[in-house]
Parts: sequence; structure tokens; C-alpha cells
Amino acid sequence: MRILFLNGPNLNMLGSREPGVYGQSTLADIETQVREQARVRQVEAQFRQTNSEGELVGWVQEAGRGFEAVVLNAAAYTHTSVALRDAISAIDIPTIEIHISNVHAREEFRHRSLIAGVCRGQICGFGEYSYTLGLLAAINLIEKSKRR
Amino acid sequence: MRILFLNGPNLNMLGSREPGVYGQSTLADIETQVREQARVRQVEAQFRQTNSEGELVGWVQEAGRGFEAVVLNAAAYTHTSVALRDAISAIDIPTIEIHISNVHAREEFRHRSLIAGVCRGQICGFGEYSYTLGLLAAINLIEKSKRR
Amino acid sequence: MRILFLNGPNLNMLGSREPGVYGQSTLADIETQVREQARVRQVEAQFRQTNSEGELVGWVQEAGRGFEAVVLNAAAYTHTSVALRDAISAIDIPTIEIHISNVHAREEFRHRSLIAGVCRGQICGFGEYSYTLGLLAAINLIEKSKRR
Amino acid sequence: MRILFLNGPNLNMLGSREPGVYGQSTLADIETQVREQARVRQVEAQFRQTNSEGELVGWVQEAGRGFEAVVLNAAAYTHTSVALRDAISAIDIPTIEIHISNVHAREEFRHRSLIAGVCRGQICGFGEYSYTLGLLAAINLIEKSKRR
Amino acid sequence: MRILFLNGPNLNMLGSREPGVYGQSTLADIETQVREQARVRQVEAQFRQTNSEGELVGWVQEAGRGFEAVVLNAAAYTHTSVALRDAISAIDIPTIEIHISNVHAREEFRHRSLIAGVCRGQICGFGEYSYTLGLLAAINLIEKSKRR
Amino acid sequence: MRILFLNGPNLNMLGSREPGVYGQSTLADIETQVREQARVRQVEAQFRQTNSEGELVGWVQEAGRGFEAVVLNAAAYTHTSVALRDAISAIDIPTIEIHISNVHAREEFRHRSLIAGVCRGQICGFGEYSYTLGLLAAINLIEKSKRR
Amino acid sequence: MRILFLNGPNLNMLGSREPGVYGQSTLADIETQVREQARVRQVEAQFRQTNSEGELVGWVQEAGRGFEAVVLNAAAYTHTSVALRDAISAIDIPTIEIHISNVHAREEFRHRSLIAGVCRGQICGFGEYSYTLGLLAAINLIEKSKRR
Amino acid sequence: MRILFLNGPNLNMLGSREPGVYGQSTLADIETQVREQARVRQVEAQFRQTNSEGELVGWVQEAGRGFEAVVLNAAAYTHTSVALRDAISAIDIPTIEIHISNVHAREEFRHRSLIAGVCRGQICGFGEYSYTLGLLAAINLIEKSKRR
Amino acid sequence: MRILFLNGPNLNMLGSREPGVYGQSTLADIETQVREQARVRQVEAQFRQTNSEGELVGWVQEAGRGFEAVVLNAAAYTHTSVALRDAISAIDIPTIEIHISNVHAREEFRHRSLIAGVCRGQICGFGEYSYTLGLLAAINLIEKSKRR
Amino acid sequence: MRILFLNGPNLNMLGSREPGVYGQSTLADIETQVREQARVRQVEAQFRQTNSEGELVGWVQEAGRGFEAVVLNAAAYTHTSVALRDAISAIDIPTIEIHISNVHAREEFRHRSLIAGVCRGQICGFGEYSYTLGLLAAINLIEKSKRR
Amino acid sequence: MRILFLNGPNLNMLGSREPGVYGQSTLADIETQVREQARVRQVEAQFRQTNSEGELVGWVQEAGRGFEAVVLNAAAYTHTSVALRDAISAIDIPTIEIHISNVHAREEFRHRSLIAGVCRGQICGFGEYSYTLGLLAAINLIEKSKRR
Amino acid sequence: MRILFLNGPNLNMLGSREPGVYGQSTLADIETQVREQARVRQVEAQFRQTNSEGELVGWVQEAGRGFEAVVLNAAAYTHTSVALRDAISAIDIPTIEIHISNVHAREEFRHRSLIAGVCRGQICGFGEYSYTLGLLAAINLIEKSKRR
Repeated sequence: MRILFLNGPNLNMLGSREPGVYGQSTLADIETQVREQARVRQVEAQFRQTNSEGELVGWVQEAGRGFEAVVLNAAAYTHTSVALRDAISAIDIPTIEIHISNVHAREEFRHRSLIAGVCRGQICGFGEYSYTLGLLAAINLIEKSKRR
Repeated sequence: MRILFLNGPNLNMLGSREPGVYGQSTLADIETQVREQARVRQVEAQFRQTNSEGELVGWVQEAGRGFEAVVLNAAAYTHTSVALRDAISAIDIPTIEIHISNVHAREEFRHRSLIAGVCRGQICGFGEYSYTLGLLAAINLIEKSKRR
Repeated sequence: MRILFLNGPNLNMLGSREPGVYGQSTLADIETQVREQARVRQVEAQFRQTNSEGELVGWVQEAGRGFEAVVLNAAAYTHTSVALRDAISAIDIPTIEIHISNVHAREEFRHRSLIAGVCRGQICGFGEYSYTLGLLAAINLIEKSKRR
Repeated sequence: MRILFLNGPNLNMLGSREPGVYGQSTLADIETQVREQARVRQVEAQFRQTNSEGELVGWVQEAGRGFEAVVLNAAAYTHTSVALRDAISAIDIPTIEIHISNVHAREEFRHRSLIAGVCRGQICGFGEYSYTLGLLAAINLIEKSKRR
Repeated sequence: MRILFLNGPNLNMLGSREPGVYGQSTLADIETQVREQARVRQVEAQFRQTNSEGELVGWVQEAGRGFEAVVLNAAAYTHTSVALRDAISAIDIPTIEIHISNVHAREEFRHRSLIAGVCRGQICGFGEYSYTLGLLAAINLIEKSKRR
Repeated sequence: MRILFLNGPNLNMLGSREPGVYGQSTLADIETQVREQARVRQVEAQFRQTNSEGELVGWVQEAGRGFEAVVLNAAAYTHTSVALRDAISAIDIPTIEIHISNVHAREEFRHRSLIAGVCRGQICGFGEYSYTLGLLAAINLIEKSKRR
Repeated sequence: MRILFLNGPNLNMLGSREPGVYGQSTLADIETQVREQARVRQVEAQFRQTNSEGELVGWVQEAGRGFEAVVLNAAAYTHTSVALRDAISAIDIPTIEIHISNVHAREEFRHRSLIAGVCRGQICGFGEYSYTLGLLAAINLIEKSKRR
Repeated sequence: MRILFLNGPNLNMLGSREPGVYGQSTLADIETQVREQARVRQVEAQFRQTNSEGELVGWVQEAGRGFEAVVLNAAAYTHTSVALRDAISAIDIPTIEIHISNVHAREEFRHRSLIAGVCRGQICGFGEYSYTLGLLAAINLIEKSKRR
Repeated sequence: MRILFLNGPNLNMLGSREPGVYGQSTLADIETQVREQARVRQVEAQFRQTNSEGELVGWVQEAGRGFEAVVLNAAAYTHTSVALRDAISAIDIPTIEIHISNVHAREEFRHRSLIAGVCRGQICGFGEYSYTLGLLAAINLIEKSKRR
Repeated sequence: MRILFLNGPNLNMLGSREPGVYGQSTLADIETQVREQARVRQVEAQFRQTNSEGELVGWVQEAGRGFEAVVLNAAAYTHTSVALRDAISAIDIPTIEIHISNVHAREEFRHRSLIAGVCRGQICGFGEYSYTLGLLAAINLIEKSKRR
Repeated sequence: MRILFLNGPNLNMLGSREPGVYGQSTLADIETQVREQARVRQVEAQFRQTNSEGELVGWVQEAGRGFEAVVLNAAAYTHTSVALRDAISAIDIPTIEIHISNVHAREEFRHRSLIAGVCRGQICGFGEYSYTLGLLAAINLIEKSKRR
Repeated sequence: MRILFLNGPNLNMLGSREPGVYGQSTLADIETQVREQARVRQVEAQFRQTNSEGELVGWVQEAGRGFEAVVLNAAAYTHTSVALRDAISAIDIPTIEIHISNVHAREEFRHRSLIAGVCRGQICGFGEYSYTLGLLAAINLIEKSKRR
């Protein structure tokens, strides 16, 4: 079982960027922790991060080949990218939208997600633990699809 | 550790109501399963359901006395109840908003949540497994608040 | 053939509340009359009224067991209740929306019906005779579904 | 007692046009049936159909002379014609708005009726039986106005 | 000097239609009076009325050949006809928009005029005297264009 | 002279709920104080609180029998309840809308009052003293209506 | 018969301000011409201009004493002054709104008139001749009110 | 204790302007009455009225020096004056917004108050008695601030 | 293979109407040219024009009998006619929407097409060559449907 | 004659992505076919695809040097990219907007094209044949500009 | 070279009004400083302040005679005065809009500037240094216009 | 003192792109000039340009290390990039938003700046001189922050 964790713009700043909102762990800390949690469950978790919309679109396309689910923290592109939405629609595996902070309790423009309608579910507001919940949700969805 | 699971209108219909959207388990099935998962983690989980907005408001108020977190599937009241929002603001323990279906992929009026801004986080779209994720998220929040 | 007539908030005030708009008959008068019309057609008509959104939701749910159609005058909840909408979707028998006054000729916020999209049809503006038309429409829908 | 049934654009296509939405009877079938129902009640029912907004406006004006009620299925002009609205306001007899399908459950632009505010009532969603209900409602209104 | 007075839908009902709003003169009365006022000023005034949008469009097109100005009471088509707007743009002579009632003091949908932006000016609210003012304005515009 | 003070959802939390916004007095403290002020003026003041919309609607209806005015702090239902609005319209005695905090200086959705249009007046922003002002306003309205 | 012509902000710039839009006559030129036209009809016309909203409000109030009609070119205050609207409502004589240019063919924000709803009629787009038409309309309204 | 009562545009017309809405007392009558009520409580009440936005702004600024509260009936400027809002923010004493009529039950554009967000509270709809309530509220606020 | 080219209001003015926008060819010129292009491909092309919405609706209905595709330049009715939309839905052959000018680069109200959602495709902005492209697209669609 | 065909995000997925909407040809198939059609007409057609907004912007800029027209299928960037719009405005050769599917019949957010206003024309809904029509339209525009 | 600095309502409160937002310098302090900076560059800078919209309009008009540029801090009138906009359009010299605070980061209603569209440029957010930048920008514009 | 000047998409086209709007200097010309102005003030100014949103985001992040202020002409990304906004919030040094043209006087969609709320101030409309003013404003902000 292989799951791809994709991270959008500015997430490489985690740990130093507004720690009051995003916590003090870096993306590398989160990766270490989630990969360990995955390993215990005999799942391979891969992590990538980019500031480029085009690259993120390309990775979602690739995920359709060789992975069984995508856990996607699209950060700011959540709210502006129709291209990302189209890429998610174009692949056959489930995508799970996650956010570190509770986007619904922040600025108005963060309430609208262009990708939520084509993802399978959304998890937000639990700090870095949102990644752990995303991992569990992904495993659950994959197992359910196998049982069918 | 005591966690209160509150369920809003029409969730007593689970299992027979539009199974394509909501799955085939009844609320009692979900309760059994989640209480077992809780017991394993030495947590007490209590389940309640009502179709009445006022009763739901009352239960949220009560939760502030004797529980450490609320996992709330407010169903339709998510989109229309300012009273529920005020009750959530009035208590000191965290509330977690959950939904069985992906509300963001349904009718326009289900995209707006009046309570999201005062909850700690949101989980939606994972079928009955949303309750399990809600339980885990609640435990994580309680532990974090103790560590502080 | 059993048909359930449900009446929402403030309809217990009929006869005394703004008679210029709603007429001078009480809900009991209407009930007597409609039950008589039903009896003639060998139909059993049951009448209920409540000011509580949760109770109305519960009655719609019950109607799915033991009745063949609902004639629903949801009054103010027509415009605000997503819970009612969900309950109507959750049952297999047809619901007919009726109003005493012509809601389309009144205040702006009465033009939007949250339930119209999940009811089978709408009748409004004919005073207490809206109930008679609702009865006839219900009988017609039941007969058509039997013929199929 | 004379009642005029007016039919707007594309209703001449009934029977062949999207039968899933509009049923399989032609407008002639409906006319035969409604005229028979009217005859039984000693009422004269007249039927007309046109694709032209101006002609429909003219017929409404005429109805004010020689008829006692109009039953109007304005079809698409329901949503776009202020001229029709003005014509309805200009005559002294009641107009009843009817539709074959439940317009409230279709595209957004069919939810707005420019004429509903000046009609006496609305009936929609009961297939061809909407015409029968329209006939009954018209008779009821005429009798009530005579009693006054 | 030849001026064409065009009248849209329902203006043939003047005199009997809501006299509180539109006054008691018929369109024929107004025509007689305005033609006399025109004759005194050595102007030929022609009057036409139709309920049909297409015919009104055709008359505006014709006006470009043989007349020097149009005085247009488009009635309901004022608010809904882009075709009329395009016809007015397509001719080289000035069009003056008139209304019997003060449209700005009536329903919201009468506040928007689709044709106002391509007419030379607007006169409304003076009862039948709006036609007299329209005549004078037309003469003034024709004289000014000759002086240039 | 009998005046009914009605209190909506979450007002039973007064004193402990966000004291910075709502002050430190409980609803019982306010009741004691206002009843004393009423007694001095030979007025009987009755206090009720509920979290249920339907119950609040019922109490407004009852008030029409046996009371001469309603002082209503509808809390969250101010912004969402058309049912409450209808109940207020349905009774013959005046209703006065009060709020502890200045709702106009808080979240956007608290600026819209569905009931303000059918109340006689509004008082907000004076803490618990809003109740005293509500009492005085009620007495004044009752006296004025007697003088007429 | 006495008629007051009131002119709002920037109209003292007529003649030099954007002559392509407003023409080359100064306000004094227009005054001379209109007073002559008035004199011929045995009417006294008075002209005033101000850049101050408060002064314009005061003049409208005064007009109620000693004049029989107001012809008002409120210029920019047309679109922003509720105070002016209230003043027009507060007097018993008719007010006629005029504009030199066709406001409906200019910027979006000039399409909304706060005062149109309380004036008797509107004339716009005829250059300085709008004043002449305003004079004639005023005389007509005064004569009609005398005849009644 | 000194309190300044400020009155905006058209309030000098009280008594003659739409008495159905505003009552029959003049502003002078109200002043006499309120000053007497103030005197009894050993408070000095000062009254001013103006049609000029600038003058009203200036008076609010002055109130900050020598008065302890402002009771402000801003009339039409309530809905259009950002300048007034800024002036209220700029002074250290509380401002109380009052209205004679219930602005929430009137035209749409009167529902928006630009100043409500910076006033301490709002009182409206009680006729001239709104001034008395404003006086009492002001005294209460001043006493509370002294107690602190 | 028979294709019907339908032309809406004001297209009979082509050549003289705003040549900067619509070019200098008349509709007859375009017809000659397109029929020649059709003949070469052994297709019969028929051309019609009308200013009447009802007639245009009737022609679309007829096209369903005897033609294999419609190329429709609905002109102004593109933006206002629901009747035209319904007629297009009611027939089984494909309709292609064309425009001479680029409607997306013109006034706001020309950006909305009521018929685009039920046509097969849209071509606009290529002057009279839009008709040639419409012809080719129609042939392509007919051939594809035959191949299936 | 050289024409540049530019393709935006996810078009590299053609053939496998939602074939019901986009057809079964790959972008390479389309390229082969269009280049052959171009060759026959002695035109050189060049094809490029990218998921990156910045790269697409750069290619449009380059097109201004060495090509005579751009045929642009901007896919998702059609709806979100102001940068693309600016690039199109910045070059002197015509750009033609094409789409495989009928964007006007899909989700609301696909109805708005940020680039349509600066392109010369739009073609959509004809499957891969949209590219052929785009080629012909481009040739026609180039020839017309040479004739001038 | 003469430049006029105009200041709108409440700017006479600078130094004492919300110093956190507006700084601690008075308008007189700023004037002294800017006039010195101007003197060094051999420019004459004149300063005025008013709370009256009409007076501000008058000063802009005057500026057209005897000054070469206006630097305008219109404060609250920025957001509400069409009269000011018209005055700026009516003069031939450039106007530069300045603000002490960053209006784009404050309340929603401060984001809309009615005058920005007719000014040459905007500078905001630099505290009193906004005046210095305004002076430099004005000098630059005047020099550029002389060079042409 | 080191200041970073960042330039967004299409600014590499300066000089050739619509010179009527953007002037005739290239970005290189502006760079030379501003670096010279900086050198005189003993400031180091660095210039960069990119068409890629991701790269611009990255540079803003970098600026937080080694520079003391950013002067940012984000061009089209001003209106669409939430990612850019987040990056600006994430760094500790001030960002100044500049534009060559007066964006407030151009198309509607250019009036909304997603970044204005997190920048310190905005300068626009002064041609290439906007860069000089941006330099001065940056120096002033840095000096002020040192003084504190």
C-alpha cells in the first residue's frame, strides 16, 4: 500500500512561519513521524513539497500511477487553482484534503475550497495531527475499496 | 477521559435513509463500534441523538460540565443554527465538527457551516469512519491540552 | 389509503391570526371538512400541528411507515429548515407542499422554499381550499404509483 | 361559467418533448380530458396555445371580457415576461398559474416566476393532473367571489 | 418634420387598466391630443401600438427610414428586451424613452431599463402629459441637429 | 398591568458565558432586579427562558392572552427564526426587542434581525440595564395605547 | 404661480466643466432663458445653486412654504443623499427631478437615484432644454392639482 | 452631569412632517419635556439641530469637551456619513444612537446604520419617548463608568 | 444532408448597422456565400430571419422534422429567451450557437447566454466567417452521429 | 504562415481523463491530425503543452515573435489567470480561444473566461474538431489582416 | 510652482484621535514640515482643512485656478462623496489621493474609494510621510507635464 | 541597508507592451535609474523579475533573510495569489506594494488586491516614478523601525 503526501506553497516554512497558527514542527519532523506511523501499518508514505502550481498538478497526475491514495495539503492553492481540481478529477484514486489550521475560522477567502468538491473528504484544524488523521483515513478508504 | 458524541436531526434514520450517500450502518451500529474503540483507549464515549435544535443546544451546554470534548455531527443544523454556535462558544472544552458525507461536494447551501468558525476542527466525507477519526482527534486535543 | 396532513408553526392560530391573509376558519374547521372529503373517497386523513421543528421532522419520518402520502403546510419552516428537507428526502412516499396564502405575492424571504425541490409539487394561494386540492393531488399520485 | 386555459411556448410539443419530464400525453389529449371534466360540472373550458409572447398577452386581455377565470401555463414566459405580468394585473378576473413539472426542482432560472405575484395561486408538479387541479381551483374561486 | 410614437404591450388597455396608476384617458384620446399639438407646430405625428416584441423591433427599424425621431413608450419591454435595444442602436435618428407612471417609484424590476443607455433621454411620471413633453423634446433635438 | 419577559437560547448561561461581552449577572439576578422595579410601578413582570425555538414561539402566542406587552431577548433566534417573526405578527400586543450587547458592533450575521421589522422598537447595548429600559418602554407603550 | 429651481454641487461650473457632456451655456444663461419662458406663462421662476448638502436640504424645506413646485437638479447628491430624500418627502408640493445629461448612459453609480422614488417624475438627457421641460411639467402638475 | 442631545437633518420639521410616522410633537416640545425630566435627576440636557453634516460632525467633536454623553438622532446621516462615524470614534465619551421610528421596519436603505458599530447602544421605535429612554441610558452609562 | 441557418432580431439590418462591429456584408451576401460552400460539400443550406421570438421558436421546432442540424445566430434573444432554450431542448438534432462579434468582449449583459447550455457548441467573433465555421461544425457533428 | 497551438494544464491526460467528456484521442493524435490538415494548406502548425502558468505565459509572449496566430486551449487557466490575459493583450497577433467540451454547459465556475475578452473569438464544444475549426479560423484571420 | 494640500473631516483631530492608527503629530506639525520640504524645492505649499463636504468641493474647484496640483486627503469623504469626484473631474490639474493609514487593511467600507478613478495616483499607509511622498509625486507630475 | 525590488509576470515586456499605459522605459532602464538613486543614499537595491508565481513566493520568503524591505510590483498576481499573500505575512520585514499604472482607474478585477491588506502601504499611478517613491518609502520605514 503506497500513499503520496503532497504539500503546497509555503509549507516548507513550517516551524518558523507564524508558529501560533501552524505549530513548531517542521515539515521534515511531520514527515518522519507520519512515515513511522505508516511503517507500523505496513504502508509506504512518500512526502513532497513545492511552491509551484504546475509541479503540484503534475504530481497529482503521477499519483494515479503507482499510488493508491493522495493526502493533499494544497495550502493557498486550495482556494485558487482550478487546474489542481481538474487533475484530481482526472485520476482514479481517492484524494483527501487536509489543513493544519481550521481554515473555516480564518479569513473569508479561506472558506472557499475549489478542490473540496472533487476530494473524498476533508480534515482540518488539528495541527500536525491532521497528517496522522489523513493517513488513517487514506488507509480506511483503500481497504474499503478492496473489500468491494 | 469522557467524550460526548452529539447527533442532530435525521441521523436516527441512518441505514435506511439514502444509503448511497450515508452508508448502511445504523447509528446504533456506529455507537457500538465507537464505544468499543474508546474503551480500548480507556475513554468513556457517550452517544445522544435528537431532532430538536433546543435539545441539542442544551446538551452542548451540559457537556461543559463533566466531559472533556464534544464530537458533534449537527447534520442540518450545521447550516442554520446560530443558537448552536453560541452554545459552542459558551463552553470551555473543544468541539469537533464531523459529517458522514462530504458536505463540500453537495448542494450549495451545505457548503456554509455556521459552527465551523467556533469548532476546533472539521472532519467530513469518510462515512461512519468519520466518527472514529473524530474520537482520535478528540483524544489528541485533550492530551495536548493536558501537556500544556 | 392513508394520508398525513402536517401543519407547522403558528397554524394553530388560524382563524384569529391576520384573517385578511389566512381566512376565518380554524385548523379544526379545516380538519373536519377535509376528513369528510377524504371519507367520501374512502381515504383516511390524519391531521397534526406543532410549533417545534424537531417534532415536525419526526412526524415526516414516521409518515414513511404507515402512510402513503404527506400533505405538508410547513409554514415558516418552509423557508429556513434544512432538517425538514432532509427528512422529506429520507422517506419513500411523496410529499406535497401547500400554503393557504400565495407565498409568491408576499415578502421576499417567503419566495424561497427550502423544501420545494424535494417535494413532488406545490399548491398555494387558494385559502383553506388548498387543503382540498392537496388531498386530491395526493390521491392522484398514490393511484398513479399503483398503476405503474 | 366560462374558463380560459392558455398555454405558452413549446407546449405544442407535449408528448414528444422530454417525456421523462413532461409525460406522454399530447396537449390535445389533456384538452379532451379537461373539457370532459368541465362539462360534468357544467362549465365551459376553452383551450389555446401559442409560441408568441404578444399573442399570449392579447389573449389574457381578451379573457377579461367573456370569461370568469384564466388557468395559465405560461411555460418559458413565466420566467421572462413582464408584459404578461402587466396583462394579468390589467384584468379583473383571477388567474391561476400552473405547471406540469415541479419548476422548483429544476434549473435555478426556473425558480423565479415573474407572474406568481399577480396570480391568485400556483399549482405545479402533478403532471397533466395539474390542469384538473387548476380547473377545480378556478371553479372554487369563482364560486367564492359570487358568494361574497 | 415627422415623428413616430411607438407604444408597447398593454397600452391598448389604457383607460380601463389600473386607472389610479395610468389615468383615465385611452390611447386614442392621447393620440388625438398629441397629433393636434403636433399639427400646431407643423409636425406630423404617427401613433402605433403592439403587444408583440418582434413587431415593435420592426417598427423601430422602419423609423430610420422616413422619420426624424422616435418617441417610445416600450412599457414592459423596457425591462426585458435586448432586441429593442439593438434596434435603437441600429438607426441614426434619436429615440426618446417615455413612461406614463414614475417607474422609479414602483417595483424593483421596473427600475432597470435595458434601453435607457441607447436612448437620448428619458421622461417619466407625468401621466399622459409625458407624451406632450416627449413631442417637445423630439422637436428640440431635431432642430438642434439641423442647426449643427 | 402584566408584562412578559421572554429569553431565548443560551441566556441560561449568563454570568459564566463570555462575561466580557455579557456581564457577570445571572438571568436570575436580572429577574429579581427587574421584578422589583416593576413592583414599584405596580406592574407584574414574568420571566421565562428556553433553548427551544418552538417553545419560544408558543410563549409569544400565549402572551397575546393575559399580558399587555412582551419584552423579548431572542438571542440567536433573532437572526434565524421566521417562525418567531410570524408569532409576533400574530398577536395584538406590542413586542419590544432587546439585547444585552450591541449586536450592531459584532459579527456580520448578528446585524440582521428577522424580527426587528415586526417589533415596535429595539433596545440594545446597555448590558443588563437593557431589561430595565425594556420595562419602561413597555409601560409607556401600554399607557399610550390606553390613552388612545 | 411660483416655482423654485434648485441646483446642486458643481453646477456653478456649467459652461467650463466638460462641455462635451454638459453643453456650453452657464447656469446664468439657463436661468435667464427659463425665467423668460416662465414670465411668458405668468409664472415666477426662482433659481438657486449650492455645493452644500445641508443648504440644499434647507431650501427644499423652505419651498414647502411659498412655492407650488420644485424643479431639482440635485447633481451628485442625487446618488448619495438620504437627507435630501427625507426633505422631499416632508413637503406637500411636487418635486421634479431633472438632469442635463442622460444619467442612464453614464457610469454605473449614476444609474441609482435615491430621490427618484419620492419625486413625481424624472426628465434627463436633453441638455439645457431639460430645464424648459421641467418648467412645463411643473406648470402641468400645478394646474392638474388645482383642477382636482 | 451634562448630556448633549444632537439632532440631524429634517428633524426641524417634526410635528408637520409625516405625523403618522413621526408623531405630532415638535422638536421644541420634546426638548422641553426631556429637559424637565433631566432637571429632576439633576442633569443638564442641551439640545441642538442642524441640516449640515459638517456642523453635526463638529458638535460631536465638541461634545468630547464638557459633556459626559451624547444622545444622537442622526436621522438620514445615520445611513450615509462615514465622517460622523469617525467623529464618534474620536471622542472618549459614550454616544447613544436613537430614532423616533423603528428604522428596521422601513425602507431597505434605512436598515444599514454606519454609526451603530461605534455607538454604545441603540434605541428606536418609541416615538418621542425614545429621547427619554436615551436620557436614562446615558445616565446609567455615566454612573457605571464612575463606579469603575 | 440539410442544415437550417436561423437568424434572430436585427440581423436584417446587417451591412448598414454599426459596420465597425458587424462588417459590411448583408445577410443576403452571407447567405449566397454559405449556400455555395454548402453546395460544394453536397449539403443543402436553408436561411431564415425574423424579429419575432415566437416565430424563431416555431422554426426551431420545425427543424426537428426534415433537417439534421441547426446553426443559430439568435442575436439579442440569446440573452433573454428561455422559450428558445426550451425549443432547442425539445428537438433531437444538434444546435450550434454562432455570433458575428465576440460577445464576450462586449457589454456585461451579452456575456450571459441562456441557450449555450443546451447547444452543442459555440463559435463567435470571426465576422461572417462564423457562418462558414458553423456550417463545417454542423457537417462534422452529423457525420460523427452517423458513424456511431 | 506559422500558427502556434498552446495547451494548458491536464491536457497531457487526454484520452485517459474522463473520456465521456473529453473523447478518446490523445493530444498526440490531435496534433498529428491538425498538422496534416495544416500542411495541406501550406501552413506550419506547432503544438506545445504545459501544466505551468508561467511557462504558458512565456510561450504566448514568444508567439508574438515568429508566429502569425495563436490557437489557445488554456484549460483550467482560462478561469483563473490574469497573467495569461495580460500576455495575450501584450502581443500583436490574434489569439483564438478553443475548448474541447462545451464549457457553458458545465460547472458555474467554468462559465467565466478571463481571457475571452482579449481573444479574437471563441470556439468550444466540438471535441477534437475544435482544433480543426481553430486552425481554419486562424488562417482566415491572417488572410483578412493581409488583405487590409 | 504652487501645490494645494486639502484635508477632509476629522483630520483636525490628528494627534489625539486614535494615535495608534493615525500617529501623534497634529495637522499643524505636518503642515510645518511639508511646507519646509516644499520651500527647499522652491515650491509653495498651501494647507486647508474642513469637515464640510461642500467646502471641500469648493476648494477643489478653486484649485483649478492658481495651483498646479492638488494633494488630497479626503478622509471619510473618500468613500461617500460623488460630489468630490465630480469636482476633481472638472479641473484640469492633477489630483493625488493620499491617506495616513493603509485603508486597504481596515474596514470593508474603507476599501472602496469613489475618487481613486479620477485621481492620477494613490499613496497610502506611510503615516505622515504620505504627505512628503505626495509632495514629491506632485512635483514629478508637474515637471513631466512641462516637459511635454 | 539592502532593499529587494521584485517584479511579477509580463513586466519583462515593459517598453514594448502597451506603451500608452506603461511608458517606454524597459525594466532594465528603471533598474539602472533606481539603483543609482539608491547608491546616492548608500542603499543597495536588488532587482528580480519572474513570470512564475511559485518563484515569486520563494523570493519573498528569501527576502526575510538578508534584506530590510521588499518593494513589490506583483502585476497580475496582485489580484489572484493567496500564496503571495501568505508569503508576505510570513516574513518580518515590511513590503510595499507598487504599480506603474493607476490600478483603481482600470478594469474592475484590478481594483481588488489580495496583498494590500498585508503590505505596509501602496503607491500607484506615477509611471516609473512609482519605483522611486517605493524606494523612498522603504528607506523611511526602515529608518523609523531603527529609531524605535
